[in-house]
Amino acid sequence: MEKSYTEMEQNFLQFYKQIEAYEEAAGLIGWDLRTKAPKKGVAQRTETLSFLAQKVHELSTSDEMKNYIDQLRNSDNKIIKASIDECEKEYNKSRKIPINEFTEYVQLTSTAESVWEEARENNDFETFRPYLEKIVDFNIRFAEYWGYKDNRYDALLDNYEPGVTVETLDKVFPELRNNLTNLLDKVNQSEDKPDPNLILSHFPKDQQEKFSLKVLEQMGYDFDAGRLDETVHPFATGLNPNDVRVTTRYDEQDFRMAVFGTIHEGGHALYEQGFDPELYRTPVCNATSMGIHESQSLFWENFVGRSKAFWDKNYDLFLEHAPESFKNIDKNQFYRSINEVKPGFIRIEADEMTYALHIMIRYELEKGLINQEIEVKDLPELWNQKMKDYLGIEPKNDSDGVLQDVHWSSGGFGYFPSYALGYMYGAQLEQSMRKTLDLEEVIHSGDLSPIKNWLNDNIHRHGSMKQPLNLLQDVTGEGLNPEYLVKYLDQKYNKIYNW
Amino acid sequence: MEKSYTEMEQNFLQFYKQIEAYEEAAGLIGWDLRTKAPKKGVAQRTETLSFLAQKVHELSTSDEMKNYIDQLRNSDNKIIKASIDECEKEYNKSRKIPINEFTEYVQLTSTAESVWEEARENNDFETFRPYLEKIVDFNIRFAEYWGYKDNRYDALLDNYEPGVTVETLDKVFPELRNNLTNLLDKVNQSEDKPDPNLILSHFPKDQQEKFSLKVLEQMGYDFDAGRLDETVHPFATGLNPNDVRVTTRYDEQDFRMAVFGTIHEGGHALYEQGFDPELYRTPVCNATSMGIHESQSLFWENFVGRSKAFWDKNYDLFLEHAPESFKNIDKNQFYRSINEVKPGFIRIEADEMTYALHIMIRYELEKGLINQEIEVKDLPELWNQKMKDYLGIEPKNDSDGVLQDVHWSSGGFGYFPSYALGYMYGAQLEQSMRKTLDLEEVIHSGDLSPIKNWLNDNIHRHGSMKQPLNLLQDVTGEGLNPEYLVKYLDQKYNKIYNW
Repeated sequence: MEKSYTEMEQNFLQFYKQIEAYEEAAGLIGWDLRTKAPKKGVAQRTETLSFLAQKVHELSTSDEMKNYIDQLRNSDNKIIKASIDECEKEYNKSRKIPINEFTEYVQLTSTAESVWEEARENNDFETFRPYLEKIVDFNIRFAEYWGYKDNRYDALLDNYEPGVTVETLDKVFPELRNNLTNLLDKVNQSEDKPDPNLILSHFPKDQQEKFSLKVLEQMGYDFDAGRLDETVHPFATGLNPNDVRVTTRYDEQDFRMAVFGTIHEGGHALYEQGFDPELYRTPVCNATSMGIHESQSLFWENFVGRSKAFWDKNYDLFLEHAPESFKNIDKNQFYRSINEVKPGFIRIEADEMTYALHIMIRYELEKGLINQEIEVKDLPELWNQKMKDYLGIEPKNDSDGVLQDVHWSSGGFGYFPSYALGYMYGAQLEQSMRKTLDLEEVIHSGDLSPIKNWLNDNIHRHGSMKQPLNLLQDVTGEGLNPEYLVKYLDQKYNKIYNW
Repeated sequence: MEKSYTEMEQNFLQFYKQIEAYEEAAGLIGWDLRTKAPKKGVAQRTETLSFLAQKVHELSTSDEMKNYIDQLRNSDNKIIKASIDECEKEYNKSRKIPINEFTEYVQLTSTAESVWEEARENNDFETFRPYLEKIVDFNIRFAEYWGYKDNRYDALLDNYEPGVTVETLDKVFPELRNNLTNLLDKVNQSEDKPDPNLILSHFPKDQQEKFSLKVLEQMGYDFDAGRLDETVHPFATGLNPNDVRVTTRYDEQDFRMAVFGTIHEGGHALYEQGFDPELYRTPVCNATSMGIHESQSLFWENFVGRSKAFWDKNYDLFLEHAPESFKNIDKNQFYRSINEVKPGFIRIEADEMTYALHIMIRYELEKGLINQEIEVKDLPELWNQKMKDYLGIEPKNDSDGVLQDVHWSSGGFGYFPSYALGYMYGAQLEQSMRKTLDLEEVIHSGDLSPIKNWLNDNIHRHGSMKQPLNLLQDVTGEGLNPEYLVKYLDQKYNKIYNW
């Protein structure tokens, strides 16, 4: 990549630094709000956060930005070219929405989030319904403003997974669904199921933390460029490429929350710690998509953290931190227990076999709503029907059903598919990685840096220089293909459930 | 105070909110840099901090600000009037300095700080000297730009202690010095000195933290509007009036560092948690001076935390957290030990009897430099001579002498006197408080809220609506008077040293 910039390019990067400064300050405030901030200080802090967001918006949609876009659109410098593409996309997205509509929408979603929270608590879809109807209407209008080729929903998908369309998803999801439900049948019919209660005994928080930190270390997470803190809803956040923080949650009755949560967020963090320094301080020093981001967290959580090899290597270490009650659990039974598959109502509690099914339900409903093929009022019924069809269970109430996710109340239509894409990308990356790495051997060695280095080279360092499907093509030699995920699940769970 | 604002006043407050937002973001970054930030992330974070400071500077010196100042200078609303005064002062201070000189000065001090750090490490005043000479020259010029009535140094003092002048200080410092050196003679001649080693045994950090938290609680520190964290150089910081954080440092060989440090910073924090809500979101929602701020921290640290009554009440609680080795220490001997007086070279390690003497040395040297009566090159010698005269000891090297403080390298001329003022203010406040409160009884009760409430009512709630000496006059009925501090020290140490 080129290092020398023209004067105009330097000016543009200098201008962009302002956006970055606001985003860094906002990022730290966001981290603090979710980890440390005392409750009374939140009200004013939130105003400050909005102010910073407004400043980013002003700069991103400014005439100065437009000028840089026009002047540098055809730059010979690849980093500048890709950066300008990013900025232009952002510029257009924002400028195409009339400002009064946007303001109204921001207010609506901000109210809707608290309405949703209460509705979920009270199992009361009807209170939330009018808000959701308005949010859907706004998203339909936004999609029209932004434009699309084939399907209106593509305009929303593009916000999270650029280049992925309804056509892409409709090609893979039905096949994936068939395969997953088949596998799930085998699981359900198994007569040798793991015992989930085996591992559910009290595990002190400080020992969970110590073990989690050791695993992060094995992964190659750089503690001089990040830290681990406690929170309610775990996340990773890159404040800058050298300050990428991980958070986790400790459940003393179920250590999996913290251990697999830390590995998951650690996977996200390695992505953001791994950008090529040449991209620092440019708009492409970012993840290329939510799906690729999720592929990184899932790769570490599932393909590494929930693997047989990982526990063969780390079970003794784990027992050093685990309380007495764990000492008599057979390693293989332990491994089977942490990999229990069980259809449940709640997406965020789902295992790796059923997770994508939860996503498909949401995808189909979103697509229907945005294309005006289904109506908000029918959502609860449709939700429950699909749960029955895909997972074989039906929630007893909307709180465990259509009301469970925050995404719609905040207007995040188009986001859900990224989660399922992350699983498929992850499995495809694993197969490619195996061409040059003996994964089991690496994991057994206790030094996971060859995995991290492979991901650094193939995924992380590129930032958002390549769109997700192009990146996938370059690394794996093919496009999106659900077969790898299915094959991985089949081989793994065949052994766990003895079918 | 008035609650209704004219439209112009509302616009001004709205405008001011931008400054506040930048300051809040910068405040959080500052807190994070000193408590949590991973080291590799610091470089970019520092740039972001400069950017935010620059934004504050731009707004504070903008034509829009000038317009509000001109329009609202004679507002009937007291809060607005005082706010405009604050803003005008800031505006003038900044605008009177030619921009190129200011830029040069910022660069100079930023370099000088690292030069100083190295010079102190290497005991090498000569390397630092040319930088300090330039900084003094700048401060002389700034003082001339800003203007003053009697003494050039007044212009600098005004940045930290508005209304206090060389005339004020020269009236009280000599008297205070005489009295302190007399007291110190008595201490030195005492044949019944406390044993300082009695309390210096290993004290685990987590137990120090637990005890410190309990003391903060007794003080009435609001943990829903703040938190306690660990740092290297303890500080308190008000990010907003409902998020005022305390930091402390744990020395496992000397619990006093954390316990008295926490009480000290807690005192600062109570000030910033105690502003009248009517002042929130205005420029007067701030401490009125560094000296009054210091009076609050010192009041709690010394008049409460190092008092006989406090340890009579809390010694059992202390022992619950202290290790076995403390269990046999007699309470009275303990009390005497924590109040040992001993002239030392280092200001920040000084006890309450010698502290002000350290300050006077610095004050006299600063005043001489700014009035061009002494030269930078003569500082080391003058320093050592004054140490001998005032404290009876002479540092063996400049690292323990003239090079020990960061202040001059960062251009903080005029700051030092505030520390000594804080001691005198604190003693004056104590005497006033005693008119309505039986301090010993309150402290014995374990519920310190009457003290906090008194300080809330008399000091905190006013923010910077009153200048420090006016505030003092209103609360105590008199001006600055060192007698109270002397009397307090005499009575307290008479008993400790049995003279």
